[in-house]
Amino acid sequence: MSVGGMRAPLVVESGPEEEEEDVEVEVLHSEEELRLSVHPAVGVLGSGDFSRSLCTRLLASGHRALVGSRDPSRLPRGLFPEGTELGSQMEAALGAERVVFVALFPEHYPSLVGLREALAGKVLVDVSNADRLGRGAGGSNAHRLARLFPQSHVVKGFNGVSAWSLQTGAHDGSRQVLICGDGPDSKAGVVQLAHRMGFSPLDMGCLGAAGALEEAPLRAFPSWRGPVLTTLLLFLFLYGYGSMKYVLFPYLAFGQNHFYQLPLETVNQTLPAVAMVTLALVYLPGLLAAGLQLSRGTKYRRFPSWLDCWLGSRKQLGLLSFLCAGLHGIYSMCLSIRRAAQYSLLNAAYRQVRAEIPNSWVEEKVWRSDLYLSSGILGFGVLCVLALTSLPSVGNTLNWREFTFVQSGLGYAALTLTVMHTLFFGWDMAFSPGSYSFFLPPMFVLALVLPCVVLVGRLLLALPCLACRLTKIRRGWETKRPRTDQEVGITNGVVADG
Amino acid sequence: MSVGGMRAPLVVESGPEEEEEDVEVEVLHSEEELRLSVHPAVGVLGSGDFSRSLCTRLLASGHRALVGSRDPSRLPRGLFPEGTELGSQMEAALGAERVVFVALFPEHYPSLVGLREALAGKVLVDVSNADRLGRGAGGSNAHRLARLFPQSHVVKGFNGVSAWSLQTGAHDGSRQVLICGDGPDSKAGVVQLAHRMGFSPLDMGCLGAAGALEEAPLRAFPSWRGPVLTTLLLFLFLYGYGSMKYVLFPYLAFGQNHFYQLPLETVNQTLPAVAMVTLALVYLPGLLAAGLQLSRGTKYRRFPSWLDCWLGSRKQLGLLSFLCAGLHGIYSMCLSIRRAAQYSLLNAAYRQVRAEIPNSWVEEKVWRSDLYLSSGILGFGVLCVLALTSLPSVGNTLNWREFTFVQSGLGYAALTLTVMHTLFFGWDMAFSPGSYSFFLPPMFVLALVLPCVVLVGRLLLALPCLACRLTKIRRGWETKRPRTDQEVGITNGVVADG
Amino acid sequence: MSVGGMRAPLVVESGPEEEEEDVEVEVLHSEEELRLSVHPAVGVLGSGDFSRSLCTRLLASGHRALVGSRDPSRLPRGLFPEGTELGSQMEAALGAERVVFVALFPEHYPSLVGLREALAGKVLVDVSNADRLGRGAGGSNAHRLARLFPQSHVVKGFNGVSAWSLQTGAHDGSRQVLICGDGPDSKAGVVQLAHRMGFSPLDMGCLGAAGALEEAPLRAFPSWRGPVLTTLLLFLFLYGYGSMKYVLFPYLAFGQNHFYQLPLETVNQTLPAVAMVTLALVYLPGLLAAGLQLSRGTKYRRFPSWLDCWLGSRKQLGLLSFLCAGLHGIYSMCLSIRRAAQYSLLNAAYRQVRAEIPNSWVEEKVWRSDLYLSSGILGFGVLCVLALTSLPSVGNTLNWREFTFVQSGLGYAALTLTVMHTLFFGWDMAFSPGSYSFFLPPMFVLALVLPCVVLVGRLLLALPCLACRLTKIRRGWETKRPRTDQEVGITNGVVADG
Repeated sequence: MSVGGMRAPLVVESGPEEEEEDVEVEVLHSEEELRLSVHPAVGVLGSGDFSRSLCTRLLASGHRALVGSRDPSRLPRGLFPEGTELGSQMEAALGAERVVFVALFPEHYPSLVGLREALAGKVLVDVSNADRLGRGAGGSNAHRLARLFPQSHVVKGFNGVSAWSLQTGAHDGSRQVLICGDGPDSKAGVVQLAHRMGFSPLDMGCLGAAGALEEAPLRAFPSWRGPVLTTLLLFLFLYGYGSMKYVLFPYLAFGQNHFYQLPLETVNQTLPAVAMVTLALVYLPGLLAAGLQLSRGTKYRRFPSWLDCWLGSRKQLGLLSFLCAGLHGIYSMCLSIRRAAQYSLLNAAYRQVRAEIPNSWVEEKVWRSDLYLSSGILGFGVLCVLALTSLPSVGNTLNWREFTFVQSGLGYAALTLTVMHTLFFGWDMAFSPGSYSFFLPPMFVLALVLPCVVLVGRLLLALPCLACRLTKIRRGWETKRPRTDQEVGITNGVVADG
Repeated sequence: MSVGGMRAPLVVESGPEEEEEDVEVEVLHSEEELRLSVHPAVGVLGSGDFSRSLCTRLLASGHRALVGSRDPSRLPRGLFPEGTELGSQMEAALGAERVVFVALFPEHYPSLVGLREALAGKVLVDVSNADRLGRGAGGSNAHRLARLFPQSHVVKGFNGVSAWSLQTGAHDGSRQVLICGDGPDSKAGVVQLAHRMGFSPLDMGCLGAAGALEEAPLRAFPSWRGPVLTTLLLFLFLYGYGSMKYVLFPYLAFGQNHFYQLPLETVNQTLPAVAMVTLALVYLPGLLAAGLQLSRGTKYRRFPSWLDCWLGSRKQLGLLSFLCAGLHGIYSMCLSIRRAAQYSLLNAAYRQVRAEIPNSWVEEKVWRSDLYLSSGILGFGVLCVLALTSLPSVGNTLNWREFTFVQSGLGYAALTLTVMHTLFFGWDMAFSPGSYSFFLPPMFVLALVLPCVVLVGRLLLALPCLACRLTKIRRGWETKRPRTDQEVGITNGVVADG
Repeated sequence: MSVGGMRAPLVVESGPEEEEEDVEVEVLHSEEELRLSVHPAVGVLGSGDFSRSLCTRLLASGHRALVGSRDPSRLPRGLFPEGTELGSQMEAALGAERVVFVALFPEHYPSLVGLREALAGKVLVDVSNADRLGRGAGGSNAHRLARLFPQSHVVKGFNGVSAWSLQTGAHDGSRQVLICGDGPDSKAGVVQLAHRMGFSPLDMGCLGAAGALEEAPLRAFPSWRGPVLTTLLLFLFLYGYGSMKYVLFPYLAFGQNHFYQLPLETVNQTLPAVAMVTLALVYLPGLLAAGLQLSRGTKYRRFPSWLDCWLGSRKQLGLLSFLCAGLHGIYSMCLSIRRAAQYSLLNAAYRQVRAEIPNSWVEEKVWRSDLYLSSGILGFGVLCVLALTSLPSVGNTLNWREFTFVQSGLGYAALTLTVMHTLFFGWDMAFSPGSYSFFLPPMFVLALVLPCVVLVGRLLLALPCLACRLTKIRRGWETKRPRTDQEVGITNGVVADG
């Protein structure tokens, strides 16, 4: 039986009340009572897809499912799972022991007001999604329902659950069900029900959170927007820069036709530059945060919100950097199967034969190419390990120390290898005037700026004087208000780790 | 306290209500009672590996473990964890507070009939696996046990759990334990026990499901069979086609020896064709489902079972397509390190020098090769993202809108890029009579058919007239029985998304 | 209400005690009581980061959070979430209903002795981490706390949880919370609390396990140490061997300058050798285990500890083998974009033209290179599938039969393909005296030894006479003590599967 006097008559008969979770009931006086209490009746208003899937799950987890429809005679009975009890909305409302799911479109909530008395004291679960973003505080469907039924307890929840995972059990769908609501005991009842249905309920706080819950399914990849946009703009800028410097200007100035480079070579020149800058953007905010803490002399002041936001985007930036690096790798490995490469080689062979040079080996170029390939491959290998630990199922198995080692240690290793890759690639080009045609520096020089800044910043922070101070600050010490050690407590790395 | 009158006297004394979850015991009168109730005694019949591992877990989670053996004197005591109470079967049956695990081979169940009285009212957990498939309804081991012990409550469960995860706790093994049974309260008791042991029990319904549970460990990759077979047959057919057209017939007709192409080139020609067709097969059933819904004018009629089955195999087909595409990528990137490629290049250089052609550049071929490489790489990149979201731990973090964007939006993007890749590759070959040697069209033409059909179908469904109708149907509208809007409820995408 | 008399007055009134989980309490006599019981007050001693994050989570999951500080007037109030009740340590200790978190550095525990009376009967949760490894039994912080507060119940737990996942809810952090303690009911109370806070508590046994729990966050990748070291040593040895044989000795003996091979070619020669040996090391311990069982005639004797340890490292060895194979693949695919490769090709073209050889095709070499590329690619593809199933979220979806098929079946397939890859590569080199320059066998011959031993061993175990005996032994049969069948129980593969 559920909480809160829903089955008052029974309680009177049986004397003591009982409560259960996954768990049982003891002092029962009759067969009928047993049946009722072990199969609590759950009401479902509405007869759409969600309602049907819900019934499947409710019945499978040992509940009775009372479906209430405005016109039960027209209900397509065959679509509901066997065992569903179909009836009028009033029957469902009255029959439900404690919890009633409201599976209607929000615009039809007002049509339920006739049930107000029947639903008094019961828990109404609002499972609806928002139809658009930004309805403001109090504008959520759940609030609307709560205003319509002041005597009932409205709990928001289950709206993110797909009908599919309701039907099949949470086998391979997510098991997480977000729930919020104002009444702690009504919420607890729904939490318990979700547990029985095989889900992992997560309490998201009071009903004020309902708006966020309802809008969540409308938002697609909210945490990816900024990073993707940044990476895209960076790509467009550098691609434009590259096509001007290497394709457009040579054509305008000397009539050289390099347009064939646009679909592949210029892209493959731009991708590594984007990957490097993005990887530097992953580690820059941590340095800025450390700098702020050092200059403020305390960690107990909030970072400016743009920095908080940037710190929160590091994982996404890192993965986008990895994507660019991976594409660059594939493009590079395809370089030699291009027609252009074959033609160049054939023409070079022709020229070599004509010039009667038996051996065209240039030791320095051989070393250079092998070194930049090696450092590039190793850097990419390290990035792969980093990306792997971004998978939730892998990252969750790491403790804090391991996570720091991977994300910070391996991350800087990858950045260093990448910079080496670029330096070996650039070698002497950076200092040859020919590379600065049209007064534009080569793209790899542009790409090196930010990573080098980050590496230098990291080295500065590793200086003993700064490192000690930073460690002290992160353990809770403050310049102005030296705190008693005892209050410090245990730090587990909430702040950005530079 | 446990379910069902096991501690009846206490209940009588206690009067008022109780509440419990993972947690025990309330009205206790003595030290001894406390000890008993906080360490509920669980019986285990049988002394094999499973029994031992079970005891380890039971003891670790705060239970007493009473092991019953037919001949306890011969039990290898050292193999059981310390604290296990070894005794006769009767002792274990009598001593168990509520739950008794039956960890014997099913063929020995009849030897337990002597315990019938001792086990009356208790919950017997059948942990056995099936020895073969297809024993039919009621033929499960659990049913057999239930028939032997009509006064006990038989619950099926724990049979999929490996002894390893029993011993170590569910640290890195799966935590999911499937359970089914007829008595809701006996089942709830086992669910609770599983919770205490650190597992995530999932209620699979009544004892009728026991057969499926017992057979599950016998089935290897049931959902992969169809897709793997399809892909394999497709591969064999296309490989045969390719080796006939490009290797066998040229040899028979003109004596050309191209047999060296069989291990790598023909495979690398076949793989992309298989990948494309399989990717088209992922999206075809969604189109068929949409077409059926449009023509029937309702979504409330079941799809034919072959279509349901096909819809359920889309993920597997997609991953197989990704595998083929990945192998094609690796093969292609290895093309230039083949001896054959080097010899061809050397011979071409020889010919070029002999023919005195200083520049063998063909602008059109250069563009073509760069374009088809680019579109291929991008298509593969998109497929990678798709494959990533098939990982349970990644997919579970997506909401419905994100999942649809990835699976439908990115999926069609990948298909389009793949078709472009093939078209750029084919370029004018498709229209040159030379490609149709032996009256067989080139393989890439075959591979293009299905993907083009799917793309055209998708475009048709995007026509406003059809798209509107389909949206209405999927929101619950029906041609014949226009339903009241109110009944519609919330759709969360149960049906195939075209 | 919670266990153990924390709310003594209430208990006295209501007579019997009650117990709850996510669920609420019934027999309440006033509004105030309701408020108290549905929002149980949890104490937190200490005011550091962990304490703050804990409060955020406690409040979000419907508890009251009473923070006790030595000097509450100096507490930076703004840093605690709204609703936290700040006070003296005594106030927090007295006000806490049942559970009190001790979020201080362990060195400050003695300063709490004044609270001994106030904390009597309550549950103290020690959340501290160890500051160094190897403090020995009884030296854990939790033991220290337990000795200081003999009348309280000390439970160890939450120490692995990061402040981050406390603040945000366990959305994408790990939900697992390890807990240990001596009192079953105090532990149950903390388990219940962890559940309410949205975590997945895992009972790790008695307080003796506290040391391990406290040290866990100090250990970085304990299971990876041995395998990584093994692989690294193997790499260094083979790299040294390769650079001596192919670079150093030719230079010393004939003055040949092959030093340019060191950064890439020698590495790319060493990596596949390491990958093969490591892969063989994955399957060797299973064979040894099978051999031991066969020779002992029983599975009921423990393996020597080095073998147990080796068996436990197989997953890590396999992943390192995969990493090496992957790097080898990337290196190989980059071979043709190296300058060295281009120069070699150009020089070969020059020589061919000079020598007037119109066709330099060598059919045998073409076949050989295609065959070893093919087998290498396929072997790598199989390794990829193996590596994928090592992901926790993928591996957890497999049943025992599927896991065995993948890990054993596919594993041996990968090993066989790898050996074939090497044999095709070596072809006749293994038998040409020229390969044994400086009396050193070529590296691929070294790399083949162990894999071939493993394959032969596996074939031996597949002989019917041995296979039958092994199966019998693994089902529980013993040479010396033929057991009654009935005791055998169900085997689910605890032992190493050869």
